[in-house]
Amino acid sequence: MAADQRPKADTLALRQRLISSSCRLFFPEDPVKIVRAQGQYMYDEQGAEYIDCISNVAHVGHCHPLVVQAAHEQNQVLNTNSRYLHDNIVDYAQRLSETLPEQLCVFYFLNSGSEANDLALRLARHYTGHQDVVVLDHAYHGHLSSLIDISPYKFRNLDGQKEWVHVVCTAQLNNRLQPSSLSLCPVWEGRSFPLLATSPKWQSEHIRKAGGVFVADEIQVGFGRVGKHFWAFQLQGKDFVPDIVTMGKSIGNGHPVACVAATQPVARAFEATGVEYFNTFGGSPVSCAVGLAVLNVLEKEQLQDHATSVGSFLMQLLGQQKIKHPIVGDVRGVGLFIGVDLIKDEATRTPATEEAAYLVSRLKENYVLLSTDGPGRNILKFKPPMCFSLDNARQVVAKLDAILTDMEEKVRSCETLRLQP
Amino acid sequence: MAADQRPKADTLALRQRLISSSCRLFFPEDPVKIVRAQGQYMYDEQGAEYIDCISNVAHVGHCHPLVVQAAHEQNQVLNTNSRYLHDNIVDYAQRLSETLPEQLCVFYFLNSGSEANDLALRLARHYTGHQDVVVLDHAYHGHLSSLIDISPYKFRNLDGQKEWVHVVCTAQLNNRLQPSSLSLCPVWEGRSFPLLATSPKWQSEHIRKAGGVFVADEIQVGFGRVGKHFWAFQLQGKDFVPDIVTMGKSIGNGHPVACVAATQPVARAFEATGVEYFNTFGGSPVSCAVGLAVLNVLEKEQLQDHATSVGSFLMQLLGQQKIKHPIVGDVRGVGLFIGVDLIKDEATRTPATEEAAYLVSRLKENYVLLSTDGPGRNILKFKPPMCFSLDNARQVVAKLDAILTDMEEKVRSCETLRLQP
Repeated sequence: MAADQRPKADTLALRQRLISSSCRLFFPEDPVKIVRAQGQYMYDEQGAEYIDCISNVAHVGHCHPLVVQAAHEQNQVLNTNSRYLHDNIVDYAQRLSETLPEQLCVFYFLNSGSEANDLALRLARHYTGHQDVVVLDHAYHGHLSSLIDISPYKFRNLDGQKEWVHVVCTAQLNNRLQPSSLSLCPVWEGRSFPLLATSPKWQSEHIRKAGGVFVADEIQVGFGRVGKHFWAFQLQGKDFVPDIVTMGKSIGNGHPVACVAATQPVARAFEATGVEYFNTFGGSPVSCAVGLAVLNVLEKEQLQDHATSVGSFLMQLLGQQKIKHPIVGDVRGVGLFIGVDLIKDEATRTPATEEAAYLVSRLKENYVLLSTDGPGRNILKFKPPMCFSLDNARQVVAKLDAILTDMEEKVRSCETLRLQP
Repeated sequence: MAADQRPKADTLALRQRLISSSCRLFFPEDPVKIVRAQGQYMYDEQGAEYIDCISNVAHVGHCHPLVVQAAHEQNQVLNTNSRYLHDNIVDYAQRLSETLPEQLCVFYFLNSGSEANDLALRLARHYTGHQDVVVLDHAYHGHLSSLIDISPYKFRNLDGQKEWVHVVCTAQLNNRLQPSSLSLCPVWEGRSFPLLATSPKWQSEHIRKAGGVFVADEIQVGFGRVGKHFWAFQLQGKDFVPDIVTMGKSIGNGHPVACVAATQPVARAFEATGVEYFNTFGGSPVSCAVGLAVLNVLEKEQLQDHATSVGSFLMQLLGQQKIKHPIVGDVRGVGLFIGVDLIKDEATRTPATEEAAYLVSRLKENYVLLSTDGPGRNILKFKPPMCFSLDNARQVVAKLDAILTDMEEKVRSCETLRLQP
C-alpha cells in the first residue's frame, strides 16, 4: 500500500481542488491523514497510533475481522436488490426484532440514517395526516432537505424555522397543534431524556393525545452504546414504546446500512397508499450480512456490558477532572456516550469555545482523536468504538489532565493559547 | 452456504411477516429466490441459471472479482469518514473529473442516487435563489420526500403536484417562471433527449435564461451504458455542459456509492452559506476503492464499446420482432438501455399492460429476468449488466419470439393469457 501513497501535502492539495470545501476536514489547520485503523486505534501515514474517541460508526472496532469476512464472503456470492427473495434480509430483520418491543415489527432497510429519518417523516405524515413536527432544540437529524428543516442545529444557519416545525420547550402541545411526529434522539449532548425539562414519556403522551407519533432516532446512540440497554429509548422503562425507531451509523460498522422499524398501524397506513418503497441498495444481501455480523460480534464480545463498565470508569475519571479544573463545568453521559462541558466560569457558564478547540488540537498532537459538539461547540464528545478499554480511558484522561494543567499555567502567565506552528 | 438456507416458502413467509409490503418483490405471485450471481447470470436456490436483463446496478457484472477484491483489500485496512485526509477520495474524484467536461470540477460523495439528487436540489436552490423545479413527465428521481415531489411517476399516486413543480411540455419557460433547476434523466424509457418535443439544449438555454440551472440525472444511464459516450448528456454534443451531474446505482457495482459533480459557481454559492455538508459513509476509503475498481474494469474490458456493439445487435433483433409481431409497437434505445413498447393495436396504441406482465412472467419461467416500465407499465426495459453478450441477445430474443408467437396463437384460439399455476 505504502508505495501507492501520495505525500500528505499532495493529498491535501488535491482535496482542496476537487472536493467541495463544504465537506469539512477534522482539524482544518492541520488535518490528519489516516491510512489504517484497527479496533479503537487509527494510524497516520507516518505510522503514528491515535486513540480514537470519535468513531461511533466503527461500533465494534475498526476493520473487525469477522465483519470484514462476512462482507467478503457475501460480496463474492451475491449482492443485489431486495426485489428478490433472500435469507439475509429476513434473518437480519428477525434478529433486530428480537432486540425491540414486539410492537415494532415492520422493517425497511436503507443506506443511511438520513434516508431512515426521511422515511420516518413520510410514514408519520401518512399515518397521522398531519404535517407538523416537534423536535428537540439543537437536534440534528440528517443532511437531506427534509431533515435540515427539522434540525435546529442546521436550519438556524440557513433559511430559518419553517412554520410547521416546533422546537420542544417552546412547542405548545395543546389542541391547536396537530403534529405528525415528535422526533427525538433519546440522548443528546450526553444528556439522556430524563434530564430534559419534560420527560419524553410525558412528551410522547402529549404528542399522541395531539394525534402525533413518537420517533426515536437511535442513529447515534442505539445498539448497546448506552450500556444498560440495547436501545437508548429503553432508558425510559420497559413500557415505553416509540411508534417508529430509526437506526444507522453503527449498525453496519462503517458499511452503509440503515433501518426503520415501525408499528403495524404506522406501516399499514403507508401500505394503503399503494405506493412502492424501493431503495436500490437497502437490504442487499451484503448490507444484511454485515449487519448480522455486527450483531454477532456485539453479543460474542459482550460489548454492551463493556460499554457500561468502561463508560462508568471514564465518567468517574472525568468527574475527578471536574473537581481539579474549573473549566470543566459538567460531565454527563450514559454508557460510552459522554459529554464534557467546558465553560469560561461557574457564574456565567459561558461556553469555552476557543479553549475546547485548542484542547482538541493539543489532544490530537498527543495522539488522541476527540471532537466537540453542542451549540457553543464547547462540549467534548466521547463516542469511541465500543472496544475502547479501561487503559484507553486512563491514557486519554491523563493527557487531558496534563493539557488542562498546562493551559491553566499559560493563563496564569498571561500567555495566549496558541498551537505551535 | 446451502446448508444454512431456509426453504423458499419459509423465506417468503418471514418476508411477508417482517418486511413492509411497500417494499415489493419482482414477480409477486411467484417471486424468485436468488442465492448467487456472476457476470450477467443469476442463480436460484435450485441452481437454475437466469439471464439477467434487469441489473443495471451490477454494471460490470455481478460479483466482478476485481471489484470484490478491491472492497476486501480496503475493508481490511481502513473504512472511515471523509473528515480525514485519504488518497482514495481524491484519486476517485480525479478519475471522475477526467470523464467530465472541465467545468464540472467540484465533487461530493454520497451513498445513493436519491441522496445525490436531493443535494443537487439544495445546490440549485442556493445558487439560483429560486424554489421552482422543472422536470420531465413520468420522471422518477428518487425515494426521498424532496424527490417524490419532483417525480411525476410518484406524486401522481400520492399528494399530487406541488405548485413549484413544472412538468416539461406543460411548463411555460417564460419570464414569469423563475426555476431553480431543470432536472432531467438524459434518456427515458429508451428515448434519449432529442426525441423530446424540445431538445434539452433548447430547454437548458431557456432554463438558464430564466435563472435556473440544468441537472443531468445520470443515475440510470451514465457510465458508458449509452455506448457512444461515457455520459448520456454527451449525446447532446461536445459543447453541452450541465451545471450539475448526479451519479449513482452502477458506479459502485452494487456497493452504495453516489456522487454529485458541480461547476465552481454552483459549489461556491453553497460554500458561501458556511454550512457544512457531512455524509457519514459518503466518500469513505472503501466506497472510493470500489468506485475506482469499477472504472478500471470498465476501461480494461472496454465495456463502453461493448455496449455499443451488443446494444446495436439487440436493437436489430428486436426490430425484427417488431416486423413479425404486431404487439411490438416500437423499439428504441441507445447502447444497452433499450425500451420495447407493447401496444394493443397500431391505431390506438393503447398500452398492452396485461400482455407485458404476462410476457415478463413467461420469460421468467424461461430463465430470463426482464422488467417493465413506463406509465402504462407496457415497456420492456433492457438494462442488463454491461457484459451482456451477443449470444445472450440471441437467446433472449429467441425466447421472446417463441412466447409472442404462442401468445398470438392463444389469442387466435380465444384462450386467456394465464400462467399455469
